[in-house]
Amino acid sequence: MADKAQLQEAIKTQGEVVRKLKSEKASKEQIDEEVAKLLQLKAQLGGDEGKHVFVLKTAKGTRDYNPKQMAIREKVFNIIISCFKRHGAETIDTPVFELKETLTGKYGEDSKLIYDLKDQGGELLSLRYDLTVPFARYLAMNKITNIKRYHIAKVYRRDNPAMTRGRYREFYQCDFDIAGQYDAMIPDAECLKIVYEILNELDLGDFHIKVNDRRILDGMFAVCGVPDEKFRTICSTVDKLDKMAWEDVKKEMVNEKGLSEDVADRIGEYVNVFPLVFSYIYMKLLFSYLELFQVTDKVVFDLSLARGLDYYTGVIYEAILSQTIPAPAEQNGADEAGVSVGSVAGGGRYDGLVGMFDPKGRKVPCVGVSIGIERIFSIMEQKAETSSEKVRTTETQVLVASAQKNLLEERLKLTSELWNAGVKAEVLYKKNPKLLSQLQHCEETGIPLVAILGEQELKDGVVKLRNVASREEVDVPRADLVDEIKKRTL
Amino acid sequence: MADKAQLQEAIKTQGEVVRKLKSEKASKEQIDEEVAKLLQLKAQLGGDEGKHVFVLKTAKGTRDYNPKQMAIREKVFNIIISCFKRHGAETIDTPVFELKETLTGKYGEDSKLIYDLKDQGGELLSLRYDLTVPFARYLAMNKITNIKRYHIAKVYRRDNPAMTRGRYREFYQCDFDIAGQYDAMIPDAECLKIVYEILNELDLGDFHIKVNDRRILDGMFAVCGVPDEKFRTICSTVDKLDKMAWEDVKKEMVNEKGLSEDVADRIGEYVNVFPLVFSYIYMKLLFSYLELFQVTDKVVFDLSLARGLDYYTGVIYEAILSQTIPAPAEQNGADEAGVSVGSVAGGGRYDGLVGMFDPKGRKVPCVGVSIGIERIFSIMEQKAETSSEKVRTTETQVLVASAQKNLLEERLKLTSELWNAGVKAEVLYKKNPKLLSQLQHCEETGIPLVAILGEQELKDGVVKLRNVASREEVDVPRADLVDEIKKRTL
Repeated sequence: MADKAQLQEAIKTQGEVVRKLKSEKASKEQIDEEVAKLLQLKAQLGGDEGKHVFVLKTAKGTRDYNPKQMAIREKVFNIIISCFKRHGAETIDTPVFELKETLTGKYGEDSKLIYDLKDQGGELLSLRYDLTVPFARYLAMNKITNIKRYHIAKVYRRDNPAMTRGRYREFYQCDFDIAGQYDAMIPDAECLKIVYEILNELDLGDFHIKVNDRRILDGMFAVCGVPDEKFRTICSTVDKLDKMAWEDVKKEMVNEKGLSEDVADRIGEYVNVFPLVFSYIYMKLLFSYLELFQVTDKVVFDLSLARGLDYYTGVIYEAILSQTIPAPAEQNGADEAGVSVGSVAGGGRYDGLVGMFDPKGRKVPCVGVSIGIERIFSIMEQKAETSSEKVRTTETQVLVASAQKNLLEERLKLTSELWNAGVKAEVLYKKNPKLLSQLQHCEETGIPLVAILGEQELKDGVVKLRNVASREEVDVPRADLVDEIKKRTL
Repeated sequence: MADKAQLQEAIKTQGEVVRKLKSEKASKEQIDEEVAKLLQLKAQLGGDEGKHVFVLKTAKGTRDYNPKQMAIREKVFNIIISCFKRHGAETIDTPVFELKETLTGKYGEDSKLIYDLKDQGGELLSLRYDLTVPFARYLAMNKITNIKRYHIAKVYRRDNPAMTRGRYREFYQCDFDIAGQYDAMIPDAECLKIVYEILNELDLGDFHIKVNDRRILDGMFAVCGVPDEKFRTICSTVDKLDKMAWEDVKKEMVNEKGLSEDVADRIGEYVNVFPLVFSYIYMKLLFSYLELFQVTDKVVFDLSLARGLDYYTGVIYEAILSQTIPAPAEQNGADEAGVSVGSVAGGGRYDGLVGMFDPKGRKVPCVGVSIGIERIFSIMEQKAETSSEKVRTTETQVLVASAQKNLLEERLKLTSELWNAGVKAEVLYKKNPKLLSQLQHCEETGIPLVAILGEQELKDGVVKLRNVASREEVDVPRADLVDEIKKRTL
């Protein structure tokens, strides 16, 4: 526990940090974060400084989805799930946390980004970092040797968030994987076909899919003289080539990873000079299938693609959108400046992962792809904002309304009848709402029809059905109302 | 770190625990748990005792969903979501973890069941315990004063799991809430109507919905002489009346909560004797709306219903299935014996919760209901297992097959054509699969059609379309294949 004087000192310092950021016109995100810290410090001070200051925010790097964002999310999910189902996939789900041990040793340098749960007695747990390791654990645990499955769920990484560009600490992955011993490169080609189909259907503009093979990288590293035990760590350095210049990548290899300058230069030569030659020799079979699937126009061989994760053993790939997301007002750190914001899918073959979980080390070959949809959401949201078309967040077909007083019971009764008949209906929760406010509710939420009740209508056994857009009204016999509404809102 | 001798001692003791449980024929769940502890201890011993023993399991109280379970889950969700949409609800989503502070002071005695994340630097976080508190936080944060929303997501409680009866530490809640200042009891009645509709449509047999009002309980407590500050804690004791006999509830009130015997007896009198009188006096308005909604046949007033959570301020309710889930082989602790396994939905009015988050304490009245679907899943899964109808886990319409060798390219090409035309199609990832194994795949997974290619068919520009069930085959011109498949699998 910090004592009071220390706390007050810390509050003073933090207050200066906030003022400085504001004067420098820093990003809203950055300022909000420092303000939150300030409020938390003040909260610790407690009673003396007035009542407890509650910090009203979501956890760093996370966000709520409002109804409009949910409508867009549902649209994106529908496209992705349709594609997965078209390719004959089943779906599974796994818990959001795993035994800590399950995740240990699977992610190489990225393991530091794993969220751990507090030890409250019992097992040590961590939030899942991806859906691939839980999938491998699931296969080993249930002794499944072949399955084609998709899994759409949130994963967690304690990374530096950049939320305006769709980089979060809690984010969705949409994974499609094929496990099983099959003839070479056929399921691998289907994964690429799936990426192609989904990016096409999402209509996000031009894209390309980089392909490489870990075995080519390993062969190249061996030829260049990289010691065996450094293959994986050099892989994750090579993978930074899309964000860093070759000179910086080389520096990391030599200074941090302890490669000789000579070896690093040889790697550079391969990566920068020989890609075309390689593609024809090593990837002939894969490309022949991609030809049959008619997707070669977007697929390019790229020897500099390495992917960070430890577990890949064969083909690897990554899809990049040509369009970029503008980063409004956000300040980028120096190491962020060149980040390709366009990477929206990635994956590869991992034939050894399931064997790491099997007590007897039995291997199950796997290949898969993960669609990272947060960036896709960002693009779609911006599209929706600039579009004139209004996004509806409910599917209500009709509002049951009245222009006269004392008809609440009649409105509730009719609404209930409509619900029972499967019609999507709303009613305002007021005893005597004004007709105008009932019509306004329809305009605001896009409800197309109003069923209006009055003394006369009740006497005549009809309901006045009003088209909100055209303002046309027609009396419909109560017995025909459901059919009429369904007909008009097909 | 424990030293080696200590560890070996602990392993010996734990081994005896496991043997004892096995000899006593304890539940599989219980044995598995103790075996897992044993393996973890052995793992700690490390190298000396041979290689690292990996524990292949999901975290305690959690489970995977296999494809069959997912198919059932999807069916249940569809029914629930349709109902929410029929009532005009939007949907939102919130992060799986919240600032710890957000959850503090909202759950009373249940707070001890909250999962905390490890302090890895930065904010202190907890997994959400329900969807109601994040909803209230969302409303306050975004200054929303009226919304009708649903939210379906997993919540987390470090409770004693009883998984065969559908009690998990990670489980889904399906919440529907109405926020806003409206005329009394109208939205409250709609929540009850929703529970009624969903339980009816899920077709789970008979059920009833208990209703009470926190204000009635508070009034009763005041009349009986319960001190104000003990209202909430006595509430959570009264709520145990469905699991404990009155005598035990009384004991808890007197011995643990410090109520005088006299006061406790007076509560007993009210709860056991007066419910009918109360229902007519206090709940007249609510029941008049329930009458209009035609749901009174399942709704009963129950003065002993209190609900555990702190935040309710008005009407509260809970839905109970008449049918029970058999608990196969599972040993129940003494305090579990009488648990009503049939409670599948609950909720109520909480007018003060949003105000707890608003910096100026502005209140937003809310009422809602939460459907607890794990128990519903358990029932549906058992139904599916005893039913003769096979649950399909994919939607594949056609398998592209061949009886002859060397036609992989042709199969891939046709499959790709079908995918591009929106047909759900599969192909085996083998160069030369046997026709029999291709047909078997269809039988096992329920694919209704096979498109068979051979040299002759290719020459004639046709595809042999086979109905898997009837074994009828017919040659279809390649140009008509898509239409024919779509027609047959409507």
